[in-house]
Amino acid sequence: MDKPDILTNVRVVLSHTTHPGNIGAAARAMKTMGLESLYLVNPSHFPDPQADAMACGAEDILRAAVVCASVDEALQGAVFVAAMTARLRDISHEVLAPREAMPLLAQYAAQGQVALLFGTEMSGLTNEEVGKSHIQVRIPANPHYSSLNLAAAVQVMCYELSLATGYAGLSLPEAVMEPARHEDVERFFAHLEQVLTQIGFFKTKAPNKLMQKLRRLYARARLEQEEVNILRGILTATTEYNARFRQQDSGKNG
Amino acid sequence: MDKPDILTNVRVVLSHTTHPGNIGAAARAMKTMGLESLYLVNPSHFPDPQADAMACGAEDILRAAVVCASVDEALQGAVFVAAMTARLRDISHEVLAPREAMPLLAQYAAQGQVALLFGTEMSGLTNEEVGKSHIQVRIPANPHYSSLNLAAAVQVMCYELSLATGYAGLSLPEAVMEPARHEDVERFFAHLEQVLTQIGFFKTKAPNKLMQKLRRLYARARLEQEEVNILRGILTATTEYNARFRQQDSGKNG
Repeated sequence: MDKPDILTNVRVVLSHTTHPGNIGAAARAMKTMGLESLYLVNPSHFPDPQADAMACGAEDILRAAVVCASVDEALQGAVFVAAMTARLRDISHEVLAPREAMPLLAQYAAQGQVALLFGTEMSGLTNEEVGKSHIQVRIPANPHYSSLNLAAAVQVMCYELSLATGYAGLSLPEAVMEPARHEDVERFFAHLEQVLTQIGFFKTKAPNKLMQKLRRLYARARLEQEEVNILRGILTATTEYNARFRQQDSGKNG
Repeated sequence: MDKPDILTNVRVVLSHTTHPGNIGAAARAMKTMGLESLYLVNPSHFPDPQADAMACGAEDILRAAVVCASVDEALQGAVFVAAMTARLRDISHEVLAPREAMPLLAQYAAQGQVALLFGTEMSGLTNEEVGKSHIQVRIPANPHYSSLNLAAAVQVMCYELSLATGYAGLSLPEAVMEPARHEDVERFFAHLEQVLTQIGFFKTKAPNKLMQKLRRLYARARLEQEEVNILRGILTATTEYNARFRQQDSGKNG
């Protein structure tokens, strides 16, 4: 069977991985399931002989790995991001099981670049990193011992993704809408925060917490490119209105 | 939720494992999915500090592991045995995918002891060992690189078994968020349209069409009650901000 093109659009992003052996084992796990695109955000040690030893035939994936200075850089161009979590967070994004999430990821991968985002071995992803995702994925596990090894989690996710794309009968929806790119969504959030500050919305509230809630809302919506344009248009109108006032105002006085 | 008794009836049997790190990683993989019974047939090195290091909180499973001199000894008392394979054999048993095989294994585990049998890292199980099983299980994989790491294979199998028994799947949290009521969402849309008119956003655009697009966006997000309150708070802040401007403005002119 030929590999579905969909899988070439899926990148695995490992953020701040501590143990190089896990990077190699993750590459092997990816390759067994037909994935090949690996992004590393500030790995502690890479390249490293331990990574090569654990890759065990998947060294080609390590050689082609893209090392990035930030998660934003690693998510550049991605239209859909699934963040792994083992925890329940205060302000949680939508949390799906792998079996629900991977068919969704595959749908987006049929249209553009998508990412599976994994955090550090000890503490997983930061809230800020999760805030850049569209969904959280949680591997159902022993409630008293839920911490899968990083590469083991990569294996389970790639396995589910491979099954989701491997079905010949898998009917992917027509791609009519253009999903928004990560960097455009980030620009929208920056614009939103700036305008909310300007209009005094944050005065009595905690901006970070509120921005997290708004990120969660719009992540669930899985914004399209046109929608980002509309929302930014609203933000611009919000501030321009006053600019026009000032102009009219100074015109009247002049 | 308590662990179903079924899982205590499942033993993982690792035959002639070469690398002790894999034994530790397998123990960790088992524990994350609620399994605890590990049998080792002639391991090259056990106990071993590398096994402990990779177990990473699952050392209790290593301490309780049963070391056996033969596969027969490890399968003593088992009523059903599933043998892992990455190969297609000349004389093949029934070969099932994990998703088909694990519900079957779970059925037998409700009645008695069952075993998941894994071979060596390099060559898997011998034909003789496979001959002692009831079914073969093959994890669907990249036809050009199908060799999962031993512990990664244990993780995938235990994950599927755990889902089949309903154990881990039921540990997902209940949805704690309060979905917004229809009438509150409608009030939000009315408020939104009013403010967008006020700030001149619709000037060159078709309000109905834009409102439809915004409705579509927020429908996809499936708004919660708190989010409706936040969004309406932003709209109120927008109007108040503009009112302050007008006041300052008329104050200057007065």
